[in-house]
Amino acid sequence: MSEYQVPIRDIQFVLYELLDYENHCKKLANADEINRELVDAVLEEGAKFCEQVIAPLNRSGDEQGCSFNDGVVTTPEGFKSAYQQYVDGGWPSMCHSTEHGGQGLPESLGNVLSEITGTANWSWAMYPGLSHGAMKTLELHGTEEQKQTYLSKLVEGVWTGTMCLTEAHCGTDLGLLKTKAEPREDGSYAIHGSKIFISAGEHDMAENIVHIVLARLPDAPEGTKGISLFVVPKFLPSKDGQLGERNKLSCGSIEHKMGIHGNATCVLNFDGASGFLIGPPNRGLHCMFTFMNTARLGTAIQGLAHGELGYQKSLAYTRERLQMRALSGAKAPDKPADPIIVHPDVRRMLLSQKAFTEGGRMLIYYAALLADIEQQGSSGDNSEEADLLALLTPVAKAFVTETGFESANLALQCFGGHGYIREWGVEQNVRDARISMLYEGTTGIQALDLLGRKVLMSQGELLKRFTKIIHKYCKAHIENNTLEEFAVPLSKLNTEWGELTLHVGMAAMNDPEEVGAAAVDYLMYSGYVALAYFWARAAEIALQKSESAEKDFYLGKLKTARFYYQRILPRTRALAVTIKSGAANLMDIEEEQF
Amino acid sequence: MSEYQVPIRDIQFVLYELLDYENHCKKLANADEINRELVDAVLEEGAKFCEQVIAPLNRSGDEQGCSFNDGVVTTPEGFKSAYQQYVDGGWPSMCHSTEHGGQGLPESLGNVLSEITGTANWSWAMYPGLSHGAMKTLELHGTEEQKQTYLSKLVEGVWTGTMCLTEAHCGTDLGLLKTKAEPREDGSYAIHGSKIFISAGEHDMAENIVHIVLARLPDAPEGTKGISLFVVPKFLPSKDGQLGERNKLSCGSIEHKMGIHGNATCVLNFDGASGFLIGPPNRGLHCMFTFMNTARLGTAIQGLAHGELGYQKSLAYTRERLQMRALSGAKAPDKPADPIIVHPDVRRMLLSQKAFTEGGRMLIYYAALLADIEQQGSSGDNSEEADLLALLTPVAKAFVTETGFESANLALQCFGGHGYIREWGVEQNVRDARISMLYEGTTGIQALDLLGRKVLMSQGELLKRFTKIIHKYCKAHIENNTLEEFAVPLSKLNTEWGELTLHVGMAAMNDPEEVGAAAVDYLMYSGYVALAYFWARAAEIALQKSESAEKDFYLGKLKTARFYYQRILPRTRALAVTIKSGAANLMDIEEEQF
Repeated sequence: MSEYQVPIRDIQFVLYELLDYENHCKKLANADEINRELVDAVLEEGAKFCEQVIAPLNRSGDEQGCSFNDGVVTTPEGFKSAYQQYVDGGWPSMCHSTEHGGQGLPESLGNVLSEITGTANWSWAMYPGLSHGAMKTLELHGTEEQKQTYLSKLVEGVWTGTMCLTEAHCGTDLGLLKTKAEPREDGSYAIHGSKIFISAGEHDMAENIVHIVLARLPDAPEGTKGISLFVVPKFLPSKDGQLGERNKLSCGSIEHKMGIHGNATCVLNFDGASGFLIGPPNRGLHCMFTFMNTARLGTAIQGLAHGELGYQKSLAYTRERLQMRALSGAKAPDKPADPIIVHPDVRRMLLSQKAFTEGGRMLIYYAALLADIEQQGSSGDNSEEADLLALLTPVAKAFVTETGFESANLALQCFGGHGYIREWGVEQNVRDARISMLYEGTTGIQALDLLGRKVLMSQGELLKRFTKIIHKYCKAHIENNTLEEFAVPLSKLNTEWGELTLHVGMAAMNDPEEVGAAAVDYLMYSGYVALAYFWARAAEIALQKSESAEKDFYLGKLKTARFYYQRILPRTRALAVTIKSGAANLMDIEEEQF
Repeated sequence: MSEYQVPIRDIQFVLYELLDYENHCKKLANADEINRELVDAVLEEGAKFCEQVIAPLNRSGDEQGCSFNDGVVTTPEGFKSAYQQYVDGGWPSMCHSTEHGGQGLPESLGNVLSEITGTANWSWAMYPGLSHGAMKTLELHGTEEQKQTYLSKLVEGVWTGTMCLTEAHCGTDLGLLKTKAEPREDGSYAIHGSKIFISAGEHDMAENIVHIVLARLPDAPEGTKGISLFVVPKFLPSKDGQLGERNKLSCGSIEHKMGIHGNATCVLNFDGASGFLIGPPNRGLHCMFTFMNTARLGTAIQGLAHGELGYQKSLAYTRERLQMRALSGAKAPDKPADPIIVHPDVRRMLLSQKAFTEGGRMLIYYAALLADIEQQGSSGDNSEEADLLALLTPVAKAFVTETGFESANLALQCFGGHGYIREWGVEQNVRDARISMLYEGTTGIQALDLLGRKVLMSQGELLKRFTKIIHKYCKAHIENNTLEEFAVPLSKLNTEWGELTLHVGMAAMNDPEEVGAAAVDYLMYSGYVALAYFWARAAEIALQKSESAEKDFYLGKLKTARFYYQRILPRTRALAVTIKSGAANLMDIEEEQF
């Protein structure tokens, strides 16, 4: 069995049948040439690379990990050569502007590429993934000279990039950061400080590494308003891109982690390294957060990736593993026992994974299309798409990674004791998945962003952008006999979503802690409703095609939608109670009473 | 900070204040000398051993793991010497009969020892833990000669034991097992076959290892009714306990696992090894299952152990780590940021751990006392205790390990990105915890045992044993103003528990798959209600003593009870829906539609 099969048909279902991708592209600047033929070709070529080149390195990368020796990081066997093939295939340039050597395809297609490379080998995929963030920063805020010097090399893929935010004493609270940038006479800055948790911060896969670094100017105000952004290359390049002297920065160590062993998580020490200001002084966080939505969607994909990989592995295993007889009588009487997929609880675990993974894909792809419009929509007012994206990004990031981790754990559970053994790869999938709820803003931080900054700060307006869409959908289908089973409960939940929001908003007027107390449960509730909307739409499509040649494919979708409504969505009954339970049950306990 | 502080006060609360332990011991044969002084002394000496000897080896044991070289297993540094200290301290003999060199203390006290050694270092604690199973088997079913030869050495601790059940093709479904036992003229048997997943199957900590092996006699019927039990020592002893020749069995390899690296999980190959029948032919499973309840409680403890360890670590961290200000204004204005324990969502994560861990302890200790009575009660009819134990064992095993894993994950989450780094030990705690839902019967198997074998097969009688106790409790307190907040919702849930049981029971009469479809959700529901009962009782005690010198201790209990009722118990609202949702949403999907 191959380690991973790219689910091309499922991806096509979401792109073409759910999201009308060809028409979507017509709404983007410079994207009118994009058609299904092109997209399918990208998918097929991408699938070959994922299945044949990087998926086979997923487990060996975990076993070997990265090694560190006196500042030099060596990636696992095969990683470097796979990266070379990736560059030779032109993949790094896919979604970047033609001006700097890119192919100009929409970010949403890059999102699909991130899914399939990330599912094949998340640790490997993080190397090009981090470059993407550096490129985005330079594209949006770099000077023309910076773009010429750095961006073209990054787009080509011969250099990679990083994002250097975190320090030992601050991750969430970047206002505390201490790294300093002292201006020099030549217009450059001397960067002093130490950064931790720098993914892909040092490695042997590319000839140069371009670090995007947050630091403080000497006269900067305290807190988040005194942070500036710098580009700090490992080797200082000449303007024509030739590598010059080694910059004064070094990798002090790499972390020993629970998972993603193939990706180097570095301590980077800047000892007077030359850096160059990006964007205006003291506006570093602002510049960095301009592409926060796509960065967070990029991490949301990790939930989908581990959900999909675990599902494929556990589905194959439960079809093969023989153990016990079905309670309703033998299903494979010619064999010593039935395959365990006959048992209802095994099916519950498989269907949970399928519902979360395919539902997560619908939500993430939908959000990626919103990001396309926000960034390169050609029709003028993109405020609705921007609002929807702002609302759905924290939901996608936290909900899809939380349910992705749940899925990865269920996949392991399907293997019984064997799941705990490394050789099957499902325990690695759990370990690798675990970081997704931590980095790029923890679940708690996403929840505060959603409920505090997005929903309540907009007086509920951002939420209404989405509940209106659901309302319209339900209204159109609620008296339709075949879709009633979805439209009726969805409509109730959609109304309740608004009521819960109002409830928390009122409570928060008296006590701001009410927001933090409700936030995570509110986010999870929002995720369950969002997926319910997409599963209703998937069921609608499936019902229309349930007599087609692909009957099994569509009936699978329809029955998974039913499973989701009957077995997963009831979790909102618990959340509706806890959201309204108030802050007192958390805040009344004194610190010494814990 | 020490790695682990034994929560002596919490343990005392459950033993003396909740369970009236001194009086309990008076109901046991040969236990009238047990008083609080003795128990407290055991706790204090045990705590010293756990904190000073084995807790410091927990992380190094994970890092080093066991090594395998040509059949020889070497345990991590310090494990062997710690075990020697354990033997010198007389710990292995604590709960065994004085006849074979034991100290005759109740099993329930051994249960407390298992908790604290297991929390300090689960991998290490499994070595003596497995011996316990072998001793129980011999005590209950061995001949007098077998007891003399093996039991006294095991009780002394100079030999250790294992349980050899699983084979590569069968774990849950032992009816498929193939290992053979051929009778020899001298009354012994030649054992041929291969066993996997044998915890502590080979190691360097004791001079001999006594394997209890399931195998088939030549003329045995197929399936579970043709399995016999054998004692198969690594070295064949003379009757006076001198070690003789090496038996024909060897360790073929050790597994590479997600966690519990310090414990050797072995493949054992039996190549005509000499074995000796225990109990009657073909009654091996029956013999082995006679102590299944205590074995499963022993695994339930693992959920409690990892819950407690994670709670201690995350509580300490969230009190120290400074990040962001409280939404209601700075709480530590003299510091650059507030300790993160001020944030409501961090408190939600801490209180969830506290509620599950302390609730799990109440449930497990309660069950352990039932096991005491069942095994050595001196008052005649122990059928009520036996029934309650049969009912609560699968609940304790599955619910406490599932919520223990949830707790361990929440502890990691409290650390943010740092939780993913090995040096903090919280990710090890997650990896170690993960196996607890798999071995000794997965959560799915426990759920079938509870709903199918225990509840429905007894026509609900076993369930009524417990719901009557809850009913009586609620009736006594429902009009008591101070306990109303617990007694009212508990009473409703208790009634609903019966209704849900009836609902599934009726459905199962038409379709046996309904049992499997409802089982896991039913088990989790049962666990939430059971913990609600214990938290109500804890709150009752706390209310009585909330003005005492230990005010903070008791108010902590009371507020955790409130948290449990308001934030955790609402999960039953989801489960009540999914339990009744029926089997169709799982069984209607065809295998090719997944």
